[in-house]
Amino acid sequence: MTGHPLDSFFAPLAVAFAGSVKPGKIGFELIRNMKEGNYEGEIYPINPAGGDVLGYRVYPSVSALPGKIDLIVISLPHQAILDSLDQAGARGIKAAVVISSGFSEVGNDQAEKTLVETARRWGIRLIGPNCAGLMNPWARHFPSIEVRALPGYTALLTQSGALGGAALALAEERGFGFSKFISYGNRCDLGDIELLAYLADDPQTRAIVVYMEGVDRGREFLRAAKSASLRKPVVAIKAGRTRAGTRAASSHTGTMAGVDEVYNAAFRKAGILRVEGVEEMFDLCQAISHCPLPEGNKVAIVTNSGGPGILAADKAESLGLNVNEPSPSLVESLKPRLSPHASLKNPVDLTVESGYEEYAAALEAVLSEYDAAIVINVATPYLDSTGIARGVIEAAGRRRKPVLTSFMAGRIVKDAVGLLDEAQIVNLATGERCAFVLSKLTERTKILERSPFALLD
Amino acid sequence: MTGHPLDSFFAPLAVAFAGSVKPGKIGFELIRNMKEGNYEGEIYPINPAGGDVLGYRVYPSVSALPGKIDLIVISLPHQAILDSLDQAGARGIKAAVVISSGFSEVGNDQAEKTLVETARRWGIRLIGPNCAGLMNPWARHFPSIEVRALPGYTALLTQSGALGGAALALAEERGFGFSKFISYGNRCDLGDIELLAYLADDPQTRAIVVYMEGVDRGREFLRAAKSASLRKPVVAIKAGRTRAGTRAASSHTGTMAGVDEVYNAAFRKAGILRVEGVEEMFDLCQAISHCPLPEGNKVAIVTNSGGPGILAADKAESLGLNVNEPSPSLVESLKPRLSPHASLKNPVDLTVESGYEEYAAALEAVLSEYDAAIVINVATPYLDSTGIARGVIEAAGRRRKPVLTSFMAGRIVKDAVGLLDEAQIVNLATGERCAFVLSKLTERTKILERSPFALLD
Repeated sequence: MTGHPLDSFFAPLAVAFAGSVKPGKIGFELIRNMKEGNYEGEIYPINPAGGDVLGYRVYPSVSALPGKIDLIVISLPHQAILDSLDQAGARGIKAAVVISSGFSEVGNDQAEKTLVETARRWGIRLIGPNCAGLMNPWARHFPSIEVRALPGYTALLTQSGALGGAALALAEERGFGFSKFISYGNRCDLGDIELLAYLADDPQTRAIVVYMEGVDRGREFLRAAKSASLRKPVVAIKAGRTRAGTRAASSHTGTMAGVDEVYNAAFRKAGILRVEGVEEMFDLCQAISHCPLPEGNKVAIVTNSGGPGILAADKAESLGLNVNEPSPSLVESLKPRLSPHASLKNPVDLTVESGYEEYAAALEAVLSEYDAAIVINVATPYLDSTGIARGVIEAAGRRRKPVLTSFMAGRIVKDAVGLLDEAQIVNLATGERCAFVLSKLTERTKILERSPFALLD
Repeated sequence: MTGHPLDSFFAPLAVAFAGSVKPGKIGFELIRNMKEGNYEGEIYPINPAGGDVLGYRVYPSVSALPGKIDLIVISLPHQAILDSLDQAGARGIKAAVVISSGFSEVGNDQAEKTLVETARRWGIRLIGPNCAGLMNPWARHFPSIEVRALPGYTALLTQSGALGGAALALAEERGFGFSKFISYGNRCDLGDIELLAYLADDPQTRAIVVYMEGVDRGREFLRAAKSASLRKPVVAIKAGRTRAGTRAASSHTGTMAGVDEVYNAAFRKAGILRVEGVEEMFDLCQAISHCPLPEGNKVAIVTNSGGPGILAADKAESLGLNVNEPSPSLVESLKPRLSPHASLKNPVDLTVESGYEEYAAALEAVLSEYDAAIVINVATPYLDSTGIARGVIEAAGRRRKPVLTSFMAGRIVKDAVGLLDEAQIVNLATGERCAFVLSKLTERTKILERSPFALLD
């Protein structure tokens, strides 16, 4: 606990779950996720039926709970929610997550209003309703029905619970971790604005991702994002870019998705990095978590094979990166250290016979002249790539500049990629994806350069 | 063997390998790949040292080989290549793959000219030099040092051996198969033009992919591609789109990469589908191998959750697909069969409580009005998705229209995706990727509509 009022949501010592305790029901699955995630605090299931569930005693009501409770997670039917909130308020609980749906998202605005009023009366802060819960993997705290996140450095703040769930499942497949996960649903009380501020202060969070379909308090959101983006990168996936998407977004939430260009301009002003979907987000946030920022946009590509190097150069230039050729003096210094067949342009093509020494020499040299490097290794099945990985790790470690790698691919580079992972060097499927990430890191550098003056606007 | 003169390359009964037989050397690794791939024909290593390698007798020279040989694969140093070719010619061998490098790609044009002249004298057809070999996984024939391909329906024809190797390694990771793999290197004799014609006739090939950095006989290439594209889809990855990429491409091969817009126009005229890289290529070719073509561009999106549906709609519309809303009569027919909370627009959002029946009913209904469908299932860990998969398979099976799915994601939909795979329904990581593939399938439909008249140009 850092002493922040919202810590009760993210690092509670005791959590109550008001909902069904039958297997397959949301209430039960929430408790199971906490248990299987090895939560170390107290878990109190609440259901009039009493008895036991998953080894925990079930209490008949909130009022019957023993000791201090920090958070209540509610998955009850409508008629029972207000009563639970009243009991929670009387017990001094100040934080509630309401998973239950059927509120403003289906036009039931009155029920949502009553929910908020009840909570306010007791000074309870709310996340939800109509949400998929939250997670703090570092505290092994998983009050959500979604796939449990691994601990990591990216916070995901999502308007759509389903999109959040899909992102968590994809992340698991990829080994990508999260610092926090928050599905805020109808944001009847706490929403993106309040949570952005919380995450900007959160020590485990290095990147904040916002998935949104629309905003309801636009100015406040942009102010919150701007302020957060001075502290750490804020990445947005904004759905509803097109006519079809906008129509779908407005049918799906209570908000009206705005015109896409307006969003782009506003995002730029607020220092938000926009990506198209979850795959781009993973690539970028992995780099944010582990890479220094580039000082400028000059990128060197070091490769052992033509084709993939060219595709990376194409992508980098099309995204506005500078892929200029090395200076004559750099070429001169490289020549004696590389194969006579190496191509000393950009990409620097070391040719297939290169290993540890050539990669280390080339990367070290280009990092003296460029702001960042993409290192490609197209491996052949019968050659060990771990030497190349060691060369890259060594040279990258000598300077604080971003180095992204694409060791291709799969089984034949598994050991080498394991070494890169340990050294916190980000390895992506293709050089093109490295180029995309570098273009966004460069955007981030520009955002920081124009701050804090831009904040005065 | 289909009786085609190039069959000696792809379905030989006996193959000779002239090169080093020391472990780690290319000659050895070629033989190992053949052996580990369970090639059923005869394998004849050739090396003056004699002895045995990997259980095969090593012959001292080509002349000393017993019986009929269909193909010779050469990884010798320059001075020994011509002698081997002469001996091969004298033995009646008509097909040779030259893996060795150091020819026109490093400015050694004279050596390459002599190589071609020697081959011509004997009527030998050549693939290479400076190439990564070829594969016919259906014949378990793997004269290449790259990761052995699984059998599949996509032929990959690549100017860059390394790009080919990277694609094979990525494909293995994804379970993607190939009908043929050909790295043609410097194309001193057989190149993209001749091989396009061969693959257009190849019964195992349903899609032909060409990776190219530049063309040397532009008109002939476009004519060959046009002719092939009347038979089956031709997909191109053309590197060297930008100034940086072009510079790299021209340093890397003997050819000058052309202006990108010229390529785009020429590709369009020749009926070539252009993609940016190998990941897009895998997605598209998987669909080509298993999906019927859409008759038009009207796409319905069926989902159980808002966010991912909106992202797919955004992508579809931005790529020119028609994501219009369903007709009033379709809405009327859907209403009684779906949840009262379902959103009967496009995306059709079935909501999270939907399963087998709702998916089957919705998909069947939209396929009566739209040309294609994207089906998204954002799964929760505790609900079984196999019922949804069965609903999709049943409804998709009733009409010959393309249906792409995105079951999200990973472990929690593994069983369901297994069922989709068996039913040959293509499942991609995101709805956006489905939208991209459908846009290209629609392009293919248009190509076929304007043929064969366009061919008269």
